[in-house]
Amino acid sequence: MPRQTVLKNEFTYFKEVHTRWMDNDTYGHVNNVVYYSYFDTLVNSYLIEKGGLDIQTGDQIGFIVNSNCEYQQSVAFPEILHGGLKVARIGTSSVDYALALFKEGNDLACAFGAMTHVFVDRATNEPSPIRGQLRDALEAIYTK
Amino acid sequence: MPRQTVLKNEFTYFKEVHTRWMDNDTYGHVNNVVYYSYFDTLVNSYLIEKGGLDIQTGDQIGFIVNSNCEYQQSVAFPEILHGGLKVARIGTSSVDYALALFKEGNDLACAFGAMTHVFVDRATNEPSPIRGQLRDALEAIYTK
Amino acid sequence: MPRQTVLKNEFTYFKEVHTRWMDNDTYGHVNNVVYYSYFDTLVNSYLIEKGGLDIQTGDQIGFIVNSNCEYQQSVAFPEILHGGLKVARIGTSSVDYALALFKEGNDLACAFGAMTHVFVDRATNEPSPIRGQLRDALEAIYTK
Amino acid sequence: MPRQTVLKNEFTYFKEVHTRWMDNDTYGHVNNVVYYSYFDTLVNSYLIEKGGLDIQTGDQIGFIVNSNCEYQQSVAFPEILHGGLKVARIGTSSVDYALALFKEGNDLACAFGAMTHVFVDRATNEPSPIRGQLRDALEAIYTK
Repeated sequence: MPRQTVLKNEFTYFKEVHTRWMDNDTYGHVNNVVYYSYFDTLVNSYLIEKGGLDIQTGDQIGFIVNSNCEYQQSVAFPEILHGGLKVARIGTSSVDYALALFKEGNDLACAFGAMTHVFVDRATNEPSPIRGQLRDALEAIYTK
Repeated sequence: MPRQTVLKNEFTYFKEVHTRWMDNDTYGHVNNVVYYSYFDTLVNSYLIEKGGLDIQTGDQIGFIVNSNCEYQQSVAFPEILHGGLKVARIGTSSVDYALALFKEGNDLACAFGAMTHVFVDRATNEPSPIRGQLRDALEAIYTK
Repeated sequence: MPRQTVLKNEFTYFKEVHTRWMDNDTYGHVNNVVYYSYFDTLVNSYLIEKGGLDIQTGDQIGFIVNSNCEYQQSVAFPEILHGGLKVARIGTSSVDYALALFKEGNDLACAFGAMTHVFVDRATNEPSPIRGQLRDALEAIYTK
Repeated sequence: MPRQTVLKNEFTYFKEVHTRWMDNDTYGHVNNVVYYSYFDTLVNSYLIEKGGLDIQTGDQIGFIVNSNCEYQQSVAFPEILHGGLKVARIGTSSVDYALALFKEGNDLACAFGAMTHVFVDRATNEPSPIRGQLRDALEAIYTK
């Protein structure tokens, strides 16, 4: 299986990712689990900043229903990474994100993946349509 | 400073603590940070099991206002530890816990510490008195 | 897309998964990231127990090169889960795992996923063949 | 017990602390455990940047032997904090750090604490003297 090439210019929102000492595992690299916390933080940062998501008291919250990651090059604290995010699909109440991490000065992703958010009503947990500012923000970073 | 000796028979509630692969850091031992998640889990497990604490919807929640830990012997995944908890002081709305971790077959703590919980009203964040089942549960594991 | 059904009897190795207080996120459920630490711990527990993996000083170490998870039902501390593991493919130096998590008394997975390990030489990071006790252990839980 | 007042101008090294989505717990604030990962990262960042600490292959490594934290004001993702560090005591092979976290635009610490590092030989785990660049770096941020 050939390695996939994921480039920085495919993404539409970027944010610095600061590694932590405890992100490194016994083998001296950022543990595979921790990449998902980088992804998770990228998505929620964007939704809060641009989409008006109110994680504390808003009526609508997002549940992750699937996620995946390809690890192509190891990373270690104290590296600072650049996280890239785009929206790959928007449905009525769900959205697919594509995400990647880039080392300083490198346009080739050291890791990349995807996550799907389903938005639900906080009280009932029933799917609820993505509307208004949230939809606008997601469409703003949509690219095929 | 002489090492303090903390023994298993000083504690009144016990629970197994399962280490995780990612708890180990670059130096191959459980990271100092993670011990607090063991402590935190011990306290909340007891409060939920015995004190009727409802972390999702209860009116009263607990905030940690201070914590400390002495690390006396290193620990590493895949070890299973035994966590010990007791209440060292109960006030109107706050409680001091003493905690320790023990290796399999060893009555001398490999780490020990303390935490203080202040119980507050979830809606207002104002301190609220410890009453009823919660107070009974805390008193049940109180020992000087 | 219909929900996939993953059953407990598809797996060959099981281990209890103890949730922690801090696994729960703002929405009151175990955060999506944390499931991978359950997976990671399952795999490494098996490799250490049965495969003779020496994570501290062994010549051979395993790197995760991809991972994915489908979240089907939410989970929350203080639940205890049952983790299931099997090997789905063994190559020369890499192995694909299938993993799932089950709630107490429920044979239908609340989450399931996959991970691929590539074994490498600790000193050179070059892929190295899976041999001896490690291969035997992986074959012992292989099932299509 | 009166609240202690810890101010930004007591510290000699500063670094931004980026919170993560999963740092927030069920009560919507950064979990008490996570503050120690901020402290830990501050210390190791400084030691790597200025003290020449080589966490992957250096002969000397640092073990935390005690830590404590006072939580004075809650913090929540997506806040960015400012971490302050100073050295409060340097011995032959051990060092005491004082640490604090500050909210944007606020010189009063929202949390503060201390940690003690004992430097040891990586191979033997025996305490080893703090010398050369490492000692210089620690002395550079020493203040009573």
